[in-house]
Amino acid sequence: MSHENYQSAIKALHECMEACNHCYDACLQEDDIKMMAQCIRLDRECADICGYLEQALVRGTPFAAELANVCAKICEDCGNECKKHDHDHCQKCAEACFQCADACKSIA
Amino acid sequence: MSHENYQSAIKALHECMEACNHCYDACLQEDDIKMMAQCIRLDRECADICGYLEQALVRGTPFAAELANVCAKICEDCGNECKKHDHDHCQKCAEACFQCADACKSIA
Amino acid sequence: MSHENYQSAIKALHECMEACNHCYDACLQEDDIKMMAQCIRLDRECADICGYLEQALVRGTPFAAELANVCAKICEDCGNECKKHDHDHCQKCAEACFQCADACKSIA
Amino acid sequence: MSHENYQSAIKALHECMEACNHCYDACLQEDDIKMMAQCIRLDRECADICGYLEQALVRGTPFAAELANVCAKICEDCGNECKKHDHDHCQKCAEACFQCADACKSIA
Repeated sequence: MSHENYQSAIKALHECMEACNHCYDACLQEDDIKMMAQCIRLDRECADICGYLEQALVRGTPFAAELANVCAKICEDCGNECKKHDHDHCQKCAEACFQCADACKSIA
Repeated sequence: MSHENYQSAIKALHECMEACNHCYDACLQEDDIKMMAQCIRLDRECADICGYLEQALVRGTPFAAELANVCAKICEDCGNECKKHDHDHCQKCAEACFQCADACKSIA
Repeated sequence: MSHENYQSAIKALHECMEACNHCYDACLQEDDIKMMAQCIRLDRECADICGYLEQALVRGTPFAAELANVCAKICEDCGNECKKHDHDHCQKCAEACFQCADACKSIA
Repeated sequence: MSHENYQSAIKALHECMEACNHCYDACLQEDDIKMMAQCIRLDRECADICGYLEQALVRGTPFAAELANVCAKICEDCGNECKKHDHDHCQKCAEACFQCADACKSIA
């Protein structure tokens, strides 16, 4: 599968990276930050791996399947944490994470 | 300036990261790869800093101006190398680099 | 200056990346996390740029001076935030940040 | 396993990241660069994932095992490519890759 074929996955990864970083940024400004500690941590993990995989796909990495498999797991864990919280940024992030997990599974 | 205000820069950074990685991937498959060595090197440098800055802007980095200043310099050097080569991927990459350099200068 | 000449800077960058990530991890577990929000944010910024520059120096980046200049600024800001907090991980991080800032300035 | 327990893996990852980037840099300057194209590509893949995992371990990532599993695979493939080439930088890189693959397997 060439990078052209990965277009929808790249889009999902990019949107997830953005949603996770927005959620991270917003969580750090919340009054109930103590409750958001795990969300902050997973937002960073998820943003970093999505940004990494996005770039790896675009450069034609030979390890697309293996990396997408890990990324799907991280997206799911981040999505499950985010969906526990009522903040709008968390709910949006959960949605982006689950969509990205699905896109990753189609590559893995 | 919040991440909403950075939308056009983020788009330019993303397109430049993609163009540089495509050019890198294609250069590694060219018959005249010896002539492309500097292009391969600068494509990686430029893709990496664009991917970095894109993510930093989205997470609300306090160092947007300083990072954008470096990124503009790297984009320009990569664009100047790419435009020397007739390959379609090099010409497209040069264009993306110069557009991204402009976008970075508007932040820096 | 080749990567051999950068050995002491690479060591300082690596120790700063480690100290910032330890501090980030520890801050997320502190009871007074609300007071640590800016420290968490700057720890990530500083760890990311130190890891980036370390790798760039090792691969012989042509942009060592420009990147080191930005990194010095980020290390200083992170160190100044960390030194405000009494936690042992913050004090250690501040020290690593200031040493790394000095190492970066010697390249920039 | 805390980051203290990961010390030997972090050391192996760091040495592998350095060896891969040195090999990448040297390959781009070889006369027989055409034969080194796959080595250049895998050096970047391997350096990037080793740098990523090193930082993830230091920040206490909850995904150490999954990431180490992918990293071991990438290190092995890079090591197998490098060991085909007589250049000193390739032979040294192969050795670092195989040691790092072993360290990753002990985490995965």
